[in-house]
Amino acid sequence: MDEAPLLAVSIGDLNGIAPHIAFLAHEEATTFCRPLYFTNAAMIEKAAKLLNHPIPDDFEIEHVSGEFTIKPGHISKKSGRYSFASFAKAVEFTTAGITQALVTLPIHKEAWHRAKIPYTGHTDYLRHRFKRQGIMALGTKELLVALYTDHIPLKEVASKIRKKPLKAFLLRLHRALTDLPLAQGPIAVLGLNPHGGDGGVLGKEEKKIAKAIAEANEEIGFQRFVGPLVPDSAFAPHMRSRYQLYVALYHDQGLAPLKALYFDESINLSLGFPIIRTSVDHGTAFDIAYKEKPKVTSYLNALRFAAELARRFEPSA
Amino acid sequence: MDEAPLLAVSIGDLNGIAPHIAFLAHEEATTFCRPLYFTNAAMIEKAAKLLNHPIPDDFEIEHVSGEFTIKPGHISKKSGRYSFASFAKAVEFTTAGITQALVTLPIHKEAWHRAKIPYTGHTDYLRHRFKRQGIMALGTKELLVALYTDHIPLKEVASKIRKKPLKAFLLRLHRALTDLPLAQGPIAVLGLNPHGGDGGVLGKEEKKIAKAIAEANEEIGFQRFVGPLVPDSAFAPHMRSRYQLYVALYHDQGLAPLKALYFDESINLSLGFPIIRTSVDHGTAFDIAYKEKPKVTSYLNALRFAAELARRFEPSA
Repeated sequence: MDEAPLLAVSIGDLNGIAPHIAFLAHEEATTFCRPLYFTNAAMIEKAAKLLNHPIPDDFEIEHVSGEFTIKPGHISKKSGRYSFASFAKAVEFTTAGITQALVTLPIHKEAWHRAKIPYTGHTDYLRHRFKRQGIMALGTKELLVALYTDHIPLKEVASKIRKKPLKAFLLRLHRALTDLPLAQGPIAVLGLNPHGGDGGVLGKEEKKIAKAIAEANEEIGFQRFVGPLVPDSAFAPHMRSRYQLYVALYHDQGLAPLKALYFDESINLSLGFPIIRTSVDHGTAFDIAYKEKPKVTSYLNALRFAAELARRFEPSA
Repeated sequence: MDEAPLLAVSIGDLNGIAPHIAFLAHEEATTFCRPLYFTNAAMIEKAAKLLNHPIPDDFEIEHVSGEFTIKPGHISKKSGRYSFASFAKAVEFTTAGITQALVTLPIHKEAWHRAKIPYTGHTDYLRHRFKRQGIMALGTKELLVALYTDHIPLKEVASKIRKKPLKAFLLRLHRALTDLPLAQGPIAVLGLNPHGGDGGVLGKEEKKIAKAIAEANEEIGFQRFVGPLVPDSAFAPHMRSRYQLYVALYHDQGLAPLKALYFDESINLSLGFPIIRTSVDHGTAFDIAYKEKPKVTSYLNALRFAAELARRFEPSA
């Protein structure tokens, strides 16, 4: 077996559940990877004291300067600034190849805003840092969903379904998967309308989708993409056994079935950047921070996913 | 235990899988209900011969006139006309209270069209017959989804989200459930936009939905409806444990998660008519008719659902 991959873990918002998750998951995590936490000893001691939880012996830390009082469940400028510093340094370590992949614990977007961090979140920063659009995928090893549109009102979705940008998206997705042990079989592209438009009676966007798929496949040289699939039956068990990766045309089209099936296990995966980045599929959970035991399934899966991809991925900036 | 309820079963399109399903499911079906098939002995003998399957001994038939040659997998005017005659008679028997509920086997819409039947399908006929709009629900006993809009293009959905018609829909749904052993707890109403609009940033329809819910609840006198729920997490396990019935604002919003979870088990349920009507959640499957063994899970569930509801429902025309 290979050596356990060294994973950069940004510590997230220390006022939230992130440090608790890191402690609780540590024993299992270290059976398959070496998480390297971007924080500092003083902050981790504060968190451990508040949580009344010992710091694991082999808890590895890469120093990120800064010290402040942890205020469980509070949106704080200081905590926002610190979580960004942790993330930015973890990105650089991974880009330089010191760490093999990046795993992010949840930050609080409003805390970043108060700290005047000019990015709306992790992905937004990665887009600026690498000058690439990237692709957001969510899910598990069994079922991954890549989003063609994400945070836009539903009423704006149909107008975004145009052949040229969809084809470009499919080609970007194909390239992003090069050398990754993901979606080696065909990728499913969903239709937009009930029954896939039913021959045009229930919507005409499926024609454009079909063209985008056909042209992307032609450029790639084989049938990389299949569809447009009828959306409501696309996630039925017999379909899921055929496809590991789906392209959803809008947020809830892909994420509602995904979360119905894999709510706690699901993770975020950023594709199309020169580094591997995974993330938990939940927020800072300020309501239970330093009070209740958070679930660690998503974090462990994010580490596992990153570890597996890291073994096969050669960073290329 | 009560006597097994007598259920009217319309035979569906005889060129499709319907008779095969009826035969295969018969033994199990008769452990909890008495299905009464609206067809005739000659047609059933033809189907049995073609299927090389014996007619079950206690296969009860209510005579519907008409005879024609079964052509497996063919869209036929004669078969269309016959499937309508079977359905219409089964509706009348149930309306008169001779049969306690109606279960429909799949018809072929194009065959009805060729037979000049002026209805687009079962539900369309029920709407005309009873002069009521009715409500289409799909699912299982664990998870039922009622559709606010159904067969319209996705781009038209947002404009349908208006307070008045949505409130009216909720009130109709509430009334349709009166005396039915369904959704005794609160009913979940989904939001329209990603993250439920995120406070208006990702869409503003949630305000109207919230008002419709509030006004419907006020008129009903208690919190019958809950929402708008964030759509993508609404079907996560911890949410499903709270709600048996969901109102989906559009077709795939409800049906994609439903089919991801319960593809083969799901049934159709018509609410808001003076009779109970359930149906299988699949079509005539002409491609496998008289060739492959069809699955009977959905049909058995449709019978079961009808049988359970029939025990509690007093027809009132």
